[in-house]
Amino acid sequence: MKTDLPDAADVRAAAARIAGVAVRTPLLEFPALNARTGGRVFVKPEVLQRTGSFKFRGACNRLSQLSSAEAPGGIVAWSSGNHAQGVAAAAALRGLAACIVMPSDAPQLKVARTRGFGAEIVFYDRLKENREEIGRGLAAARGAIIVPPYDDPDIIAGQGTAALEIAEDASRLGVGLDAVLVPAGGGGLAAGTALAIGALLPDAKVYCVEPAQFDDHAQSLASGARIENPSGGHSICDALMAPLPGEVTFAINGPRLAGGLSVTDGEVEAAMRFAFEEMKLVVEPGGAVALAALLSGKHDARGAAVAIILSGGNVDAALFSRVLSAG
Amino acid sequence: MKTDLPDAADVRAAAARIAGVAVRTPLLEFPALNARTGGRVFVKPEVLQRTGSFKFRGACNRLSQLSSAEAPGGIVAWSSGNHAQGVAAAAALRGLAACIVMPSDAPQLKVARTRGFGAEIVFYDRLKENREEIGRGLAAARGAIIVPPYDDPDIIAGQGTAALEIAEDASRLGVGLDAVLVPAGGGGLAAGTALAIGALLPDAKVYCVEPAQFDDHAQSLASGARIENPSGGHSICDALMAPLPGEVTFAINGPRLAGGLSVTDGEVEAAMRFAFEEMKLVVEPGGAVALAALLSGKHDARGAAVAIILSGGNVDAALFSRVLSAG
Repeated sequence: MKTDLPDAADVRAAAARIAGVAVRTPLLEFPALNARTGGRVFVKPEVLQRTGSFKFRGACNRLSQLSSAEAPGGIVAWSSGNHAQGVAAAAALRGLAACIVMPSDAPQLKVARTRGFGAEIVFYDRLKENREEIGRGLAAARGAIIVPPYDDPDIIAGQGTAALEIAEDASRLGVGLDAVLVPAGGGGLAAGTALAIGALLPDAKVYCVEPAQFDDHAQSLASGARIENPSGGHSICDALMAPLPGEVTFAINGPRLAGGLSVTDGEVEAAMRFAFEEMKLVVEPGGAVALAALLSGKHDARGAAVAIILSGGNVDAALFSRVLSAG
Repeated sequence: MKTDLPDAADVRAAAARIAGVAVRTPLLEFPALNARTGGRVFVKPEVLQRTGSFKFRGACNRLSQLSSAEAPGGIVAWSSGNHAQGVAAAAALRGLAACIVMPSDAPQLKVARTRGFGAEIVFYDRLKENREEIGRGLAAARGAIIVPPYDDPDIIAGQGTAALEIAEDASRLGVGLDAVLVPAGGGGLAAGTALAIGALLPDAKVYCVEPAQFDDHAQSLASGARIENPSGGHSICDALMAPLPGEVTFAINGPRLAGGLSVTDGEVEAAMRFAFEEMKLVVEPGGAVALAALLSGKHDARGAAVAIILSGGNVDAALFSRVLSAG
């Protein structure tokens, strides 16, 4: 796959492919956030995307190129819950069966919504079992096609369409962005962003943001090689717990990202509360890390124009309430 | 004042006046909401507006025409909390002092945010005292200018800019709207909407939506004269508890609105949960009534194109959590 890295033209092709099916989310500016950071912050709310996260973009781009003849046994995917919903919704639109391997401790809302899009769910124990092995076994038995969560050129190109829209809207506003901050799990959104921003806004630096104990991108970018997270880490960000950067994604991100930032659970919760109070947006923990990097001062936005992606909003009501009451 | 009713040209002038200060909120479409209602629903999320509600539009339009020489004693207003924030924020931007008369049982978040914009707050007992009397007394003593919450041509014109943007964006999308649903308390947003939609999309019907026990607009529209709500009514919608339609607003709304709908607290709470789960938007009770009218089937959107305004998102975390957990 390394020889087949996607480029900005693939992101543009993905945008044409998903137009009218994916939501073109707006680029928002909040006076309260500008005042708080001392810069101009442009917010890309992928919480408003179909299925509640950017993941629908990549899944839609991948599945729209499949015919049911190519996938007689449907689709198999593994995911903590957002890619699950993206694949399930995109498969339903194509009339394809979807089977998703999800951790048994996935947020209830993500499980319920994935099932709501018509997918079959197979649970696994995140600490004891290997989801890729389970998924590959299921796919082989069914004659199904695997749609990986990030290490796939079509998935990366699809995720990049969010950043393509950021670049288009910023240009329309006459704003030259200094930086773009995006959450990173396996690095698919970061890679797609790096491709789109690199082509359209080459002066803007792209940073990825991770949970403190899952900062494999930050470590890998600093060392130049893919480094795995130590085992036993914990984070409230269920969507960002990939063990290490993807092979394909890191081939793109390594030479292109300006660096990796990391934020604590406390900083993430504060960002979720800020989004509730000042932005009236529901953001899940993993979706709030870029906002957390700004609010915590890990990235200094003073005097700068910065875009951030709020990547998802699929959070259980109970956790959301707990976070609000902890403020 | 009846001889000086605002018109669509005043809404356009207001839009020019508040441009770059108020947020131009997007017009959003949610596949999940379309699927649920059987129509195409266009959502105007004024929860994303500066101060978290549409009220900033009217306040900004009114105050941007005032000089500090005209208001040596600043501004006085009365409000349950959203007009309070709108006036406080607009006054701060103009360097004017603001004093707001608020009910002692106003949501804590609204009180805190109004104070956060630098306003002085005077509390009154909603059941025993008259807020207008208190406000007029304060204004007379201070040499302050009163900015009424709805019965004012500049306020109405300012609120109408939200609907002007709906009409512009719908036209850009090539969509002919069949109906526009807006929340009504005193009727300022409805009146501004009626003016803007009447001029730009004359085929679209404008409906106002109210809490069940505060359906004074529905009653007044049906009878042709302003009717006051019976006393003792209760509603979760703190923002929509005006006793009767405004004199100026009803002079506009009476001949222009297609009718009034009403929704129960339970329907409002269900709409707030839908907005949390499927739209990832934080909507306060009063801001959710138009959505509630659609989801409850009070307005049938099947096969139609309908725009709704989510008018505000200033809800206490404790109430929001309670609503989520009641689902």
